[in-house]
Amino acid sequence: MNNEKITKRDEDFAKWYTDVIKVADLVDYSSVKGSMIIRPYGYAIWENMVDALDKEFKRTGHTNVQMPMFIPESLLQVEKDHVEGFAPEVAWVTHGGNTPLEERMCVRPTSETLFCDHFKKIVKSYRDLPLLYNQWCTIVRWEKTTRPFLRSREILWQEGHTLHATEKEAKEETLQMLRIYENFQRDYLAMPVLVGKKTDKEKFAGAEETYTIEAMMYDGVALQNGTSHYFGQGFAKAFDIKFLSKENKLETPYQTSWGCTTRMIGGLIMTHSDDAGLVLPPKIAPIKVDIIPIRNTDEVVSTIKEIEEKLKENGISYTIDDSDKSPGYRFAEAEVKGYPLRMEVGPRDLESGEVTLVRRDTIEKIKVKVENVLSTIQNLLEEIQENLYNRALMRRDSMIYTINTYDELKAMSEKAGGFAFVNWCGDVSCEEKIKDDLSLKSRCIPFIGAEPDGNCICCGKTATTKIYFGKQY
Amino acid sequence: MNNEKITKRDEDFAKWYTDVIKVADLVDYSSVKGSMIIRPYGYAIWENMVDALDKEFKRTGHTNVQMPMFIPESLLQVEKDHVEGFAPEVAWVTHGGNTPLEERMCVRPTSETLFCDHFKKIVKSYRDLPLLYNQWCTIVRWEKTTRPFLRSREILWQEGHTLHATEKEAKEETLQMLRIYENFQRDYLAMPVLVGKKTDKEKFAGAEETYTIEAMMYDGVALQNGTSHYFGQGFAKAFDIKFLSKENKLETPYQTSWGCTTRMIGGLIMTHSDDAGLVLPPKIAPIKVDIIPIRNTDEVVSTIKEIEEKLKENGISYTIDDSDKSPGYRFAEAEVKGYPLRMEVGPRDLESGEVTLVRRDTIEKIKVKVENVLSTIQNLLEEIQENLYNRALMRRDSMIYTINTYDELKAMSEKAGGFAFVNWCGDVSCEEKIKDDLSLKSRCIPFIGAEPDGNCICCGKTATTKIYFGKQY
Repeated sequence: MNNEKITKRDEDFAKWYTDVIKVADLVDYSSVKGSMIIRPYGYAIWENMVDALDKEFKRTGHTNVQMPMFIPESLLQVEKDHVEGFAPEVAWVTHGGNTPLEERMCVRPTSETLFCDHFKKIVKSYRDLPLLYNQWCTIVRWEKTTRPFLRSREILWQEGHTLHATEKEAKEETLQMLRIYENFQRDYLAMPVLVGKKTDKEKFAGAEETYTIEAMMYDGVALQNGTSHYFGQGFAKAFDIKFLSKENKLETPYQTSWGCTTRMIGGLIMTHSDDAGLVLPPKIAPIKVDIIPIRNTDEVVSTIKEIEEKLKENGISYTIDDSDKSPGYRFAEAEVKGYPLRMEVGPRDLESGEVTLVRRDTIEKIKVKVENVLSTIQNLLEEIQENLYNRALMRRDSMIYTINTYDELKAMSEKAGGFAFVNWCGDVSCEEKIKDDLSLKSRCIPFIGAEPDGNCICCGKTATTKIYFGKQY
Repeated sequence: MNNEKITKRDEDFAKWYTDVIKVADLVDYSSVKGSMIIRPYGYAIWENMVDALDKEFKRTGHTNVQMPMFIPESLLQVEKDHVEGFAPEVAWVTHGGNTPLEERMCVRPTSETLFCDHFKKIVKSYRDLPLLYNQWCTIVRWEKTTRPFLRSREILWQEGHTLHATEKEAKEETLQMLRIYENFQRDYLAMPVLVGKKTDKEKFAGAEETYTIEAMMYDGVALQNGTSHYFGQGFAKAFDIKFLSKENKLETPYQTSWGCTTRMIGGLIMTHSDDAGLVLPPKIAPIKVDIIPIRNTDEVVSTIKEIEEKLKENGISYTIDDSDKSPGYRFAEAEVKGYPLRMEVGPRDLESGEVTLVRRDTIEKIKVKVENVLSTIQNLLEEIQENLYNRALMRRDSMIYTINTYDELKAMSEKAGGFAFVNWCGDVSCEEKIKDDLSLKSRCIPFIGAEPDGNCICCGKTATTKIYFGKQY
């Protein structure tokens, strides 16, 4: 059975992760080193993510556009910090057919330069602002080591790019989009995230401020799962973007960008799944109910038909596994795929007018009268969604440690994982020492509760803030 | 006014086309030669196309996947005809960061080789078939001359790739998808298309049979607007894809692929638009009604509010142009953008409880009582959709010529455009002569009415079929 191919999560987390993905048919490796194939079931999860986020982007006034996939080298170089950050990890196109290009181009690792180049042409007056754009596309970053969904040479993502007349408005946009990511991950992915600001060292190449949502995986390791950047006027000045204000003065606009990727699928898996396979929160699961006839008697078949109608009418996605495999095999398969509910329909249960529902999150079995199936399913899907979030939240919170001495921090870093919440002087040299010595990277400075209550955990000088540190994917 | 920037269609069709696109804000040129930027209004049209087609693909059992963007050179070379067809026009990636690649890779010009490489790994038994996959993505073809939507280095498209146990099933799939394209273009884009088979010379590199839908633009020039290929076992054999049949024998499956692209937006424009700008069929238009208050009196504002509610409730998209520009300017802008209906709401009309609707297709003005606005809009949108189709069909049919002599064919080729329906011996040398001498390329052999009724228009030998010829984009 497929679930026997899954390494135990507590034995080897990395191997467990790739086993779960492989056995659930989410991805396949390809002949293209570092690039994965997203298979139908994995892509259906991504489609659900895209649908939910795209609706939110549109609700808040954003429209989608499509920029070129290539960036000429000279264009990438316009903003100094940006090119330094990205040039070492791009794929270079040097030939079109048999002809060498006059200027080589990279496949976009992100599209700030392309958007700025476009903005410069189309923005003339305050009437053109704000520009609220988003793009769904594939980007390329030439990673040396890769892992499905988490670190890949090709990444499916969205990148928002906006331009505003005032600093205030641009900053509000930056935080609005961060909140949209936070809410999406909580409400759809059942993932609690820490929300806050990145340090200068960890911010995006070219940004004035980078905000992040940081999730904690089951093993206590952080996953940066979405970022929102405030650019100030840096890019706009480098690209000479100007607009005529209401007062008829030439001014420089303020800019943001924000993005999240297929990496969220990796986060979903490493938050909820278990030794039996995938566990998907109902709101993002492509299939909510897996119906398994124990034997194909007339009554079983007609009951399933009746239930199907109800599910269809109520927009609850389902599948029927009536293959000739044994019930046990099919139960295991349902667990591997992470269907939130499986429904066993058998002659014995039907004698008392019942079917059996099994929750994927708790493996609890619930006998239910056929006439109550729909409402029970609706309630259970909500309960599962809530339970997954609460379970992840409790685990996450149990692995956040308030730490006051460097020795304690060192001891923590040698253990399994988790986040350390510490006082910090704000100096990059302390941040780097903690990273180099203990492999802990700064996660974020939270919006609330960051007032220091002691001295810097590293140098002992006066702390300016509290901050989270942790290992990261 | 923006419509004054549009060259007259009958003066210079090519310039008219690019003017319409530019003035309606569909695309912008970029610093990346040969690549265009699809702006919000253009991308919204594409999103509507994607939505409608994706629903049809899913209804017929297809699922979406995502393959790598790159193809290693050795993989592209596996199928001989295929590499010959595509290698001269691909973009080559030679470096990742600062490191030269061991093997260069092209950006996919199409993904047959990637799908085959994957199929080989995942197909084992007849139980795995049919595989019905589709991919929405960007492809790259290194075109020398480009034109927005029609011929671009980067193309947004979908490519379906399917694998079947039998020849019969694969052939049915090929034709089913062609019909889906045909119906979509008729029902949504209001574009009549000729449906048929490509000649051997014009078929896809590696296909056994290529089917096409051929639209005729306003200027009589053909646009190949979607193709569906039957591959037989060619790719499967080259890639050594095998499956165990029900009878436990190792067999080679049969394959199809099919695709359509953003080029359809170009087709839409060159079929329906006019000297005043874009004309969009209601079923694909991102905005159906443009509401223009003539003056912002209380009654105008409250009437618009009332109408808005009705439109919202009934899912009819609209925009309100209450800018400080003159009514005339805003009317022209509505025409430039091709909104199917514009609604003028002014104090004078309201005295008799009316508003004015103006059809974009006929510029006809219709006074309508406020209480009848919704039903009138619904009826008019249907009428416009139908009228655009019928108008295009009549024009198309009036430019299809049944031609019996080479002299007549020559005379036609020197005129404006149109399709010639001629007898053909089936020999590629005649097809090439017509192309080289007269710049007419074979379009397709229709499914119905292709029985020859004379001798080959070129060599005079016995004809084996009738076939369409025409100039093409």
